[in-house]
Amino acid sequence: MERVKTAIVGASGYTGQELVRLLLMHPGIELVAATSRQEAGRSLGDVFPRFRGMPGSELAFIGPDPDAIAATGAKAAFLALPHGVAAEIARALLERGLKVIDLSADFRLRDPQVYAEFYGHEHPAPDLLGEAVYGLPEVRSNAIAAARLVASPGCYPTSILLPLIPLLKAGLIDPATIVANSMSGVSGAGRKADIPLLFCECNESVRAYGVPKHRHLSEIEQELSLAAGDKVTITFIPHLIPVNAGIATTTTAMLKPGVDAAAVGEALEKAYADADFVRLLGKGGCADTKHVTRTNFIDIGWEHDARTGRVLLMSAEDNLGKGAGSQALQSFNLLFGLEPMAGLQLV
Amino acid sequence: MERVKTAIVGASGYTGQELVRLLLMHPGIELVAATSRQEAGRSLGDVFPRFRGMPGSELAFIGPDPDAIAATGAKAAFLALPHGVAAEIARALLERGLKVIDLSADFRLRDPQVYAEFYGHEHPAPDLLGEAVYGLPEVRSNAIAAARLVASPGCYPTSILLPLIPLLKAGLIDPATIVANSMSGVSGAGRKADIPLLFCECNESVRAYGVPKHRHLSEIEQELSLAAGDKVTITFIPHLIPVNAGIATTTTAMLKPGVDAAAVGEALEKAYADADFVRLLGKGGCADTKHVTRTNFIDIGWEHDARTGRVLLMSAEDNLGKGAGSQALQSFNLLFGLEPMAGLQLV
Amino acid sequence: MERVKTAIVGASGYTGQELVRLLLMHPGIELVAATSRQEAGRSLGDVFPRFRGMPGSELAFIGPDPDAIAATGAKAAFLALPHGVAAEIARALLERGLKVIDLSADFRLRDPQVYAEFYGHEHPAPDLLGEAVYGLPEVRSNAIAAARLVASPGCYPTSILLPLIPLLKAGLIDPATIVANSMSGVSGAGRKADIPLLFCECNESVRAYGVPKHRHLSEIEQELSLAAGDKVTITFIPHLIPVNAGIATTTTAMLKPGVDAAAVGEALEKAYADADFVRLLGKGGCADTKHVTRTNFIDIGWEHDARTGRVLLMSAEDNLGKGAGSQALQSFNLLFGLEPMAGLQLV
Amino acid sequence: MERVKTAIVGASGYTGQELVRLLLMHPGIELVAATSRQEAGRSLGDVFPRFRGMPGSELAFIGPDPDAIAATGAKAAFLALPHGVAAEIARALLERGLKVIDLSADFRLRDPQVYAEFYGHEHPAPDLLGEAVYGLPEVRSNAIAAARLVASPGCYPTSILLPLIPLLKAGLIDPATIVANSMSGVSGAGRKADIPLLFCECNESVRAYGVPKHRHLSEIEQELSLAAGDKVTITFIPHLIPVNAGIATTTTAMLKPGVDAAAVGEALEKAYADADFVRLLGKGGCADTKHVTRTNFIDIGWEHDARTGRVLLMSAEDNLGKGAGSQALQSFNLLFGLEPMAGLQLV
Repeated sequence: MERVKTAIVGASGYTGQELVRLLLMHPGIELVAATSRQEAGRSLGDVFPRFRGMPGSELAFIGPDPDAIAATGAKAAFLALPHGVAAEIARALLERGLKVIDLSADFRLRDPQVYAEFYGHEHPAPDLLGEAVYGLPEVRSNAIAAARLVASPGCYPTSILLPLIPLLKAGLIDPATIVANSMSGVSGAGRKADIPLLFCECNESVRAYGVPKHRHLSEIEQELSLAAGDKVTITFIPHLIPVNAGIATTTTAMLKPGVDAAAVGEALEKAYADADFVRLLGKGGCADTKHVTRTNFIDIGWEHDARTGRVLLMSAEDNLGKGAGSQALQSFNLLFGLEPMAGLQLV
Repeated sequence: MERVKTAIVGASGYTGQELVRLLLMHPGIELVAATSRQEAGRSLGDVFPRFRGMPGSELAFIGPDPDAIAATGAKAAFLALPHGVAAEIARALLERGLKVIDLSADFRLRDPQVYAEFYGHEHPAPDLLGEAVYGLPEVRSNAIAAARLVASPGCYPTSILLPLIPLLKAGLIDPATIVANSMSGVSGAGRKADIPLLFCECNESVRAYGVPKHRHLSEIEQELSLAAGDKVTITFIPHLIPVNAGIATTTTAMLKPGVDAAAVGEALEKAYADADFVRLLGKGGCADTKHVTRTNFIDIGWEHDARTGRVLLMSAEDNLGKGAGSQALQSFNLLFGLEPMAGLQLV
Repeated sequence: MERVKTAIVGASGYTGQELVRLLLMHPGIELVAATSRQEAGRSLGDVFPRFRGMPGSELAFIGPDPDAIAATGAKAAFLALPHGVAAEIARALLERGLKVIDLSADFRLRDPQVYAEFYGHEHPAPDLLGEAVYGLPEVRSNAIAAARLVASPGCYPTSILLPLIPLLKAGLIDPATIVANSMSGVSGAGRKADIPLLFCECNESVRAYGVPKHRHLSEIEQELSLAAGDKVTITFIPHLIPVNAGIATTTTAMLKPGVDAAAVGEALEKAYADADFVRLLGKGGCADTKHVTRTNFIDIGWEHDARTGRVLLMSAEDNLGKGAGSQALQSFNLLFGLEPMAGLQLV
Repeated sequence: MERVKTAIVGASGYTGQELVRLLLMHPGIELVAATSRQEAGRSLGDVFPRFRGMPGSELAFIGPDPDAIAATGAKAAFLALPHGVAAEIARALLERGLKVIDLSADFRLRDPQVYAEFYGHEHPAPDLLGEAVYGLPEVRSNAIAAARLVASPGCYPTSILLPLIPLLKAGLIDPATIVANSMSGVSGAGRKADIPLLFCECNESVRAYGVPKHRHLSEIEQELSLAAGDKVTITFIPHLIPVNAGIATTTTAMLKPGVDAAAVGEALEKAYADADFVRLLGKGGCADTKHVTRTNFIDIGWEHDARTGRVLLMSAEDNLGKGAGSQALQSFNLLFGLEPMAGLQLV
């Protein structure tokens, strides 16, 4: 079978690096372009010593020029760029016939006004929002398979949405009582030369940040509202912890009056019976990030706090994996009709 | 001034070790006994190489014999023992005229039935519960100063109680909506040879545990109920993160209808205006454990989530410091009329 | 192509776990047996949550019974057992027609007296030493390919031998001046419930240990002596550092009089021109463990200290990878005529 | 007793921060000035949240103006500045009558040509080199006590010099065979916004760097040569490991022919019998950084490798403590006739 020629635009950050890793190992993909303004001319192996010696690692970075990318014969491109920047290059690549999987926030929101509210500037390409598909494969695989433009979800949203959506759809919990606390590894903050991201500043430290209105709330609430059939507003508190990778999220909500706690487990099992990458831990299962790092799995456990009537949802994923790169690849497999687990059977 | 002769019973665990550290540096204390069944006969410096060279580190461990402890002339004893074990030795030392500061859970609960419910066995000394004082110095310094038996609070409770009590007393929040998420360093689990506490099991890992009914809930709810003037039941989710020391807690609750968010800041400021060891970070302050480790400070910030009506309380302390050893020492200073910050001006 | 049925004996430690990971992803291997006395009856996925959801992870552990292992149709077995224990089961499996790749120290030494000197007891199977092949694939691939019993090298030896052997063979350095300092991740100490391996004991700590006569010196010196054509004795100092995986080794030695430093680079390049898994960093290259973890690569850089006449060799590998599991798999590929990089193209 | 008014020039880096910590707790010092170009106007507590609530933490940073510093009445100043910058301000403060303890490299070398060779530019104040005292208190306490200008040693040098100097003075080892391998925490690299110092770049990583001619070699060899009475040149390999603080150094050297290994222990014991801050671990003692962090102690153990004739010296210190801030404070106590352990009895 011929491998799908594919590009990564913005390949020098942590998410880009994870995409390079995944694509070099994917049996159905040929990585034909990796872009980086700063690293143009250097090979993947030179910039990321980890990749030296792997077939494909001799590929040289190019600048983010749409024509140059198209000239490689790429049929698809992953965008791992800052929001705002991604929209422009997405349009250019779509015009040149590529399918685009965007890992930025640019196409995740249906409503450009919500984008402006949360990101602080006008949406750069509102005309494309209509066709973009929010790429949560467990929720809308058919739409992803048919899309030209996939907006791959953020790391926090994935860890919050997958446990909650089945419960909201089944009407088991009171949406007004949802509180989500997440703990994220430092790679989630990106590969930036900032003092607060130094080893000595992060090691032996844990703290909340970005409260009360983290940008990811916009996409979280959009998708929860779709699932609930009504507008949902939640409280979300992200925390930074000293690990390289991984997000653990604990979400609590009140069960609706009369709901039997067992219904929670049933809703999750029904929703994810056929989901390759959702691993249900059952009642009492406390998801641990160490079991999911460098995979596309998300582990979900739950508990019932009978004393207060709350359900506890505990999820764990790799923020660069199921929360970014490998989830985007999962959408790619759908887009190109590849085996769902192709290139993702990694542990 | 003569230094107060003091003993540490159970000095070979992490909390005991922290007490040794603090007492060796305290200008008003002479450490005259440190007990450990396993280490009896060896000096503090031999067992804990960190202490060698410090005046006092040549003291040899003795077994936990009440008569031997009393024979050293000790006027007070810190107990850093497992629950159930502490009660017995506490009684023996009280009978021999020592004041006792117990860091176990044995005397924290007023109701022996709650103890039995949460700890799984009958209370070993119910007759002593009446005189034991729950030793949160910011809440009841006078009672501590007059006590013979202080039950020093646990690490999670301290980080949850200090932010919440002023708000409950002022009637600002709905007690039924309280959810507390804590992230604790590994030392909180003790110095035990358990596989899950190995470096390779904890490093690059984060997970919830002990849900939905952690033992510390019993003392948390007792004290919250006292503050609220009514029975309070909350949801509490502890998480284990890869740091040696430190607890960060994020607590959320709905403001009562009509309450202005500014009242939260005012209640905290009023409560802790004269508290030496509570540092208020104000609105938007995200407490970070790295600023409090090895100190007796607790940092508290808060935020208002106007979209949902919740208040967010973010606290950070050292689980072995303000959450255990140094808080017990703070009570000691009260018990013996020493300067409040004596031996605790450490950063 | 039919996959080779394979067993892992002793699959519940860190090395066993890494072998499970590698074999589940290997396209040419079918894992048919995994043994563990303690975990018998439980599935791979139950014992190691990381593996759940992977094809093959439903396999149940069995006890270490040679007949039961042979009954699975296994053609080969990896042994990840303590030294002393491995020899016995190796013999039993060889008798049942399996090829054996032993990751313990039992068959690494040619001389049973050296074994007794370093391991403190008589060799358990001296008659098998004659046919065992010390499985350093870069040094003796043909012998490995023809072997029935491969003794896969330890983690420290691999990191020391691969840089040094070409220099000794070329006669560039004075063997009497070799000093090797290694820094190893904690997983190298195994998955044992020991106080010194607790998170709080290892984190924020670095120290030497096992001096002056670490057990691995025996195999290091055996192989160096073979390369030098004369008995070689070196100084080796291992250190424990707070990382899960990875070994960095810095080895120094005096260049022989008249040797041009450039000859060092040439000798390395000549030796490893065709080596898939040795990545040469050249002069000035400081190997970093973060680029090799979870791979079978070893990175080797070198430097010349013109002021003293010493050459510095800096190598990095994953102690569970090229230093244990994946290197054993590299030998497996040779034993069964598979593609050299099969199952090892991981980054 | 009146406290000595003291300034810290360059107080916003990691070394400066450690000096602030130590001076705030020192009973004989009043911190009257802390300088930082960037933080001028902000208080110590604002810039370093750890210090809030400590007496003295309300002091505001000022710019590095010599007149302003002198105007505070400061009798002494610690300089925690980059090399090259320190010399200029040192001169200005000396002229204004202050004693100066410089923690940069500017006054450590007696020979300005060696400075130029290792630091790449002309020495900025060669006329001051004559009176500067290399401030290793265990080696020249009298000279320090009488000095006006103390050049406090670097972190690597301290960990290498203290074990070696007694052996060289006693003529026990062959200076030409000395090889020192050090492992340093990340704080040693300073508080700079550099990609290689990010958490995700340092965590789960270990590597050599700065070979073969690290700048600190210049002062190491100067002091070793003084001890040996002859020019000494050594090999030194620093490594970066993922801890915040601490340096472990393992130094090897050949015993001179006929030297009994026991003489090593005797030489160390004789040299440091009265040294408050050197803790000898004896033969077989493997110094561990976790026992010395945040103290002024250096732990030194040794071993004899009888097979090769080498002695192994294993030392551990805090790179910001005995390797920087607290060692400078140790010199301060000498300069002002304070108790040797004043302000340094910290564990």
